[in-house]
Amino acid sequence: MLVTEIIRKKRDGKKLHRDEIEALIKGYTKGDIPDYQMSALLMAVFLKGLDSEELHIWTQAMLHSGRVIDLSHIEGKKIDKHSTGGVGDKISIPLAPVVASLGVKVPMISGRGLGHTGGTLDKLESIPGFDVNLSVERFVEAIEKVGVAMIGQTEDLAPADKKIYALRDSTATVESIPLISASIMSKKLCEGIDGLVLDVKVGSGAFMKTVKQAEALAKTMVNIGISAGVKTVAVLTSMDEPLGWAVGNSLEIEESIEVLKGVGPKDTTALVEELGGWMLVLGGVARTKDEGVAMVRNAIKDGRGLRKFKEMVAFQGGDSLVADDPSRLPKAKHRHDFCASRQGFVSKIDCERVGLALCALGGGRKKKEDKIDPSVGFRVHKKIGSHVAEGEPLVTVFYNDEDRLKECLDLLKDSYQVGDKKVRKRPLIIRVMN
Amino acid sequence: MLVTEIIRKKRDGKKLHRDEIEALIKGYTKGDIPDYQMSALLMAVFLKGLDSEELHIWTQAMLHSGRVIDLSHIEGKKIDKHSTGGVGDKISIPLAPVVASLGVKVPMISGRGLGHTGGTLDKLESIPGFDVNLSVERFVEAIEKVGVAMIGQTEDLAPADKKIYALRDSTATVESIPLISASIMSKKLCEGIDGLVLDVKVGSGAFMKTVKQAEALAKTMVNIGISAGVKTVAVLTSMDEPLGWAVGNSLEIEESIEVLKGVGPKDTTALVEELGGWMLVLGGVARTKDEGVAMVRNAIKDGRGLRKFKEMVAFQGGDSLVADDPSRLPKAKHRHDFCASRQGFVSKIDCERVGLALCALGGGRKKKEDKIDPSVGFRVHKKIGSHVAEGEPLVTVFYNDEDRLKECLDLLKDSYQVGDKKVRKRPLIIRVMN
Repeated sequence: MLVTEIIRKKRDGKKLHRDEIEALIKGYTKGDIPDYQMSALLMAVFLKGLDSEELHIWTQAMLHSGRVIDLSHIEGKKIDKHSTGGVGDKISIPLAPVVASLGVKVPMISGRGLGHTGGTLDKLESIPGFDVNLSVERFVEAIEKVGVAMIGQTEDLAPADKKIYALRDSTATVESIPLISASIMSKKLCEGIDGLVLDVKVGSGAFMKTVKQAEALAKTMVNIGISAGVKTVAVLTSMDEPLGWAVGNSLEIEESIEVLKGVGPKDTTALVEELGGWMLVLGGVARTKDEGVAMVRNAIKDGRGLRKFKEMVAFQGGDSLVADDPSRLPKAKHRHDFCASRQGFVSKIDCERVGLALCALGGGRKKKEDKIDPSVGFRVHKKIGSHVAEGEPLVTVFYNDEDRLKECLDLLKDSYQVGDKKVRKRPLIIRVMN
Repeated sequence: MLVTEIIRKKRDGKKLHRDEIEALIKGYTKGDIPDYQMSALLMAVFLKGLDSEELHIWTQAMLHSGRVIDLSHIEGKKIDKHSTGGVGDKISIPLAPVVASLGVKVPMISGRGLGHTGGTLDKLESIPGFDVNLSVERFVEAIEKVGVAMIGQTEDLAPADKKIYALRDSTATVESIPLISASIMSKKLCEGIDGLVLDVKVGSGAFMKTVKQAEALAKTMVNIGISAGVKTVAVLTSMDEPLGWAVGNSLEIEESIEVLKGVGPKDTTALVEELGGWMLVLGGVARTKDEGVAMVRNAIKDGRGLRKFKEMVAFQGGDSLVADDPSRLPKAKHRHDFCASRQGFVSKIDCERVGLALCALGGGRKKKEDKIDPSVGFRVHKKIGSHVAEGEPLVTVFYNDEDRLKECLDLLKDSYQVGDKKVRKRPLIIRVMN
């Protein structure tokens, strides 16, 4: 099979055949197809698209490019959640243990933060001792014994995706709905799951800035999941402002613990309930989403979620006492209040800017190689619609380095808009697609 | 300057800035930009195009990626001709010496054959001793002393084009009008010419199958030439059937000599006159194309063209006696007549198939690395509109190897269509664009 012929077909907007897609992904993973042919093809895919049949085959080929985890010997449904990423998005951390405490297995393989978006793995690593690099065997053991584990990608899972993602990053072919969908779904379908809830973020802090874009992405991913025989639900949620009050790694662990104790912020708690509700439906333990939501509330109320969290932390080598005493988490040395320059109502938050301000502070990564300071971050006092007096703190910055604070404040400065009228914000849960 | 940003811009259909194009071509030629980024960009250019300003800058950047020949110290205008390639297209071989015999300098850098199209260099090399690999210094000396030379690309001329062409070949980005135009024009503008006549072929044996496509290519190349301050004329000509009676390297040299002796086939002679007429106009020695045509006819009639051809062959180390005695050229051992299976009129010739049949015989290249047998080829007896009796020879095949003959005849078999009615063929000269 001539690779140039495959490239030519896609370039001309024609549909690729199963054999062609499989030869392509296999050949590229093995190194038989050079980067320069794959990048030309990726650009052609970027500009000409993949239809749902091509995309199903493409995703399956990526998924089968390496090891696929088998959890079929473990009792109960295995359900995961994936978020397209945002600012202050710590949802997985309280969500996974709560759902696991209700009898659904949660085998969660997560990512790291890059640019303005944070990553679950970075947040977990702010818990002293927590190991996100479990082997697949140990991961399976955790699902069996604890019912939940949260780890990073291993070398042997979906190697095609790793190679293709790196190439896309350096050839301006990242922002493609089919390529994003195949990348996410191939990694998730590797986990051996029965169902998947997708949290597709929309707004100033999300990759998808409009509902239309987010719907297209959600629909594409749901179709891939269904084609693969995995029940998939997508929930479109607002990312117009940071989630909860905490932005920054150890601060977000602290907030997650608050959620599990029933004293978390309203938006964060609501999203844990909504996504948890769907996970329980897919896991077959709740008949309706509302029933699932009620079960999540109960598991928070009676402490089952928090106990499962402690179990998970302990199994992964972490200090589970942080759940009782958050002061055991890394703390920044200094604090600084970023205040409103006028009185009024917060009308808009440039959430991506807030994420970049965290990067500037050292709490996120500009480049993949950057090291993270887990202790720094923000406590967000005011959200969209909040009333502020002149000089009242909008955000408290927790920092270790004066130069970095300066850079951070330069970014925060333009991130808040304060107006005269109270604006209505978009609901947190925009719509559900399945 | 971030290469990914440049790729992104072109991917989104935006116009590239001068600095961006220059950095790209320079960086790629030096090896600072990897193949995989360039191939993604080339695919974006293939699908989104380059406007005339971008294309001018792109061509100039390719042209200046290596050495540019300076012929300004040599008296007289320097005018070249380029053909987009066809079957039996030996025009350059009689044309260049005839024009040079009329006082216009012809510094011609040519190419080799690939696939169904022949190459001037391969044809010239069938003259015993003829050296197409002159150094640039020796090439300049030939222009000074003889007024004409025909050589191959040297390593230091337009190196960006060589590298980009190889990449396009393996990434399905060849058939792009801006990229083809930039490739041709950067190589031609390197020669230090004052004017250029483009022979843009249209039809079954050409890359451009329709007049519309050929017009688009011609217009693009003429614009690049004019932007570079080089007078450029494009002549669209028919490639619906082989030019002249000869297809094959040494046979085409023989036919070229016949043209220079005034006994060549009508179509070949007419095209030499037409293109020569325009070269003389651009060279400032004829006021009108018709005056130029008359001058070409005279130079053929009085033998000046043939004498200049012998001078050129001698300067480049070739056996100039071939001009008097074509039997000194390599000859194939055997001949076979390919005959009409019915009587009627030739209605169509699949000229690309005829070119591929020559390849099969060993007279052309399927891959760049293939060696050529200069002695094999065809004498074409019947053209579109010719009457044939059943069993009358359409083409005589000159061959050395029975297996290759068989493969060749398989291809020739379907190349001729014979019908009941005499069809009118497209005129040889379709239109002139300048």
